[in-house]
Amino acid sequence: MSSAEKKNYWVGLDLGGTKMLATVYDADFKPIGRRRRRTKGTEGADSVTARMIRTLRDAIEDAKLTPSEVSGIGIGIPGPVDQEKGVVLEAVNLSWENVQLAKLVKSELDLPVVVLNDVDAGVYGEYRFGAAKSARTAIGIFPGTGIGGGCVYDGQIIRGKRNSCMEIGHISVTPEGQLCGCGLRGCLETEASRLAISAEVAKAAYRGEAPYVLASAGTTLADIRSGILAEAIAAGDKVVEQIVRRAARILGTAVAASVHLLGPDVIVLGGGLVEAMPELYIETVASAARKAVMPSFVDTFKVVAAKLGDDAGVLGCAAWAQKTFSE
Amino acid sequence: MSSAEKKNYWVGLDLGGTKMLATVYDADFKPIGRRRRRTKGTEGADSVTARMIRTLRDAIEDAKLTPSEVSGIGIGIPGPVDQEKGVVLEAVNLSWENVQLAKLVKSELDLPVVVLNDVDAGVYGEYRFGAAKSARTAIGIFPGTGIGGGCVYDGQIIRGKRNSCMEIGHISVTPEGQLCGCGLRGCLETEASRLAISAEVAKAAYRGEAPYVLASAGTTLADIRSGILAEAIAAGDKVVEQIVRRAARILGTAVAASVHLLGPDVIVLGGGLVEAMPELYIETVASAARKAVMPSFVDTFKVVAAKLGDDAGVLGCAAWAQKTFSE
Repeated sequence: MSSAEKKNYWVGLDLGGTKMLATVYDADFKPIGRRRRRTKGTEGADSVTARMIRTLRDAIEDAKLTPSEVSGIGIGIPGPVDQEKGVVLEAVNLSWENVQLAKLVKSELDLPVVVLNDVDAGVYGEYRFGAAKSARTAIGIFPGTGIGGGCVYDGQIIRGKRNSCMEIGHISVTPEGQLCGCGLRGCLETEASRLAISAEVAKAAYRGEAPYVLASAGTTLADIRSGILAEAIAAGDKVVEQIVRRAARILGTAVAASVHLLGPDVIVLGGGLVEAMPELYIETVASAARKAVMPSFVDTFKVVAAKLGDDAGVLGCAAWAQKTFSE
Repeated sequence: MSSAEKKNYWVGLDLGGTKMLATVYDADFKPIGRRRRRTKGTEGADSVTARMIRTLRDAIEDAKLTPSEVSGIGIGIPGPVDQEKGVVLEAVNLSWENVQLAKLVKSELDLPVVVLNDVDAGVYGEYRFGAAKSARTAIGIFPGTGIGGGCVYDGQIIRGKRNSCMEIGHISVTPEGQLCGCGLRGCLETEASRLAISAEVAKAAYRGEAPYVLASAGTTLADIRSGILAEAIAAGDKVVEQIVRRAARILGTAVAASVHLLGPDVIVLGGGLVEAMPELYIETVASAARKAVMPSFVDTFKVVAAKLGDDAGVLGCAAWAQKTFSE
């Protein structure tokens, strides 16, 4: 920064399938303005990007700033991006393909814009301000409908030549396993995602083995969410605990593979499942991972719960903009 | 470099279980002096390090230089190292543990010394001068008695907090598989190393199904080396080809895991097995890897044979010293 009076405000926007959230931060990353809006993905890319720009303007106004006082914007996207070009390669939930997002936002707000994958943003947020602070190598894993992953290595978000990587959800864990949404078989996420757990629990409920679940959510996958799973375990649905633990153990073996390849010091687990039953889940993953790594790696890593919840993504976006545009 | 007349010679030393090789390079990494010596590991760490220092001095003399004209030394070690401290954490073949190698060599030659893992050095050599030149993310895999791996990301050797990582040989490929030397079960190297192939081929030879192998090497594992395997395939021992292809396919699935996590653009395969049958081996690995990655990754990487043979390690050591001490 050349000028002593240089503005130092950063904006993060986390674009989700149902809502978007923009937050303006000061130089110490204290939030000073925010705006939330529905995504309305079905209205198409032009409409969504217009709503994003409006949300950014609103958040900046909420912070009592003008765009010209902002140093840069980071935007997190649910899908692979080309960070260098600022292009969203794909966002399945939004039916986006090759959207020149950075260019578009830049042309409207005349500010530096960086686009990144939303999971990468979440891991970067936890690395800068949360559970993985100051880690040399931080891996983040977020089991939900799928299983997202990201890695911050030596202060950098690891990415492939063209786009984001750390697709830990598609590591093979069962050679002749169930078909995955990606077209492969036996991927980690077909066996261990929250959705996979819900499907097994629904079967158990149908068979009468999970009475709490049957009474409170029936056998509808969409209703068997993380909170219900935690309640069912507390209420004594033993089979639900067994199903969750099995999924966590399988995830632990994938964690072991990532330890062998990347030697992380911290593995952060986040998302609804982890928030609903942090101890049971984290302990089971950690113990399975330790059993599946070489002796020399056993004491090299810790497995911890994410700390920032939904803020991780938007904070990570803003902090990544800061790193990108002020170094 | 402050002085315009600054010396610009770099020395690499690759320490193996049976021999060590030191080479002196000029600023363009042309070799201008070298020395080879037996390791004699059984004589203990003091004796081996004394031989290393003599070998370095001899190579520098062979280049018609004095140590004071050399800019730095890189030393590759068959085991995990703490790069920051220049300590060899362990070298099983040499019965070394916590050897303060950088300090020791520095005190004798009064030169900057960097210590790195030998596989990392080989991958870095291929990245700087060989088959992975200019890759953004290069992964190197060397199937031999075990299966070594290394990764160069954005010009840096990837490493864990304490030591080298990329232990691809210990990724689990068969959950209830054979016991591995590391104490785990079903590691990639128990299923797909050259040693694993030799053991399966010995069984086949014993059963009379590999007549060429039986006639030329018998059923002694130490004699069933890569060259014999290649000759046997050429001579029509079908079962040998099947065994090699199966091992290569299994290695391909581990490659797929590394593609999902790291999104490499180049995967370099090296070592005796690859040198003895490059086409058959590389093609089988590549095709198995492509079948096991998500569609969006299929065209993002290539699988190639290493180009530098035994020179990769020593070149990588010298080049890493250059990177470490002149940046």
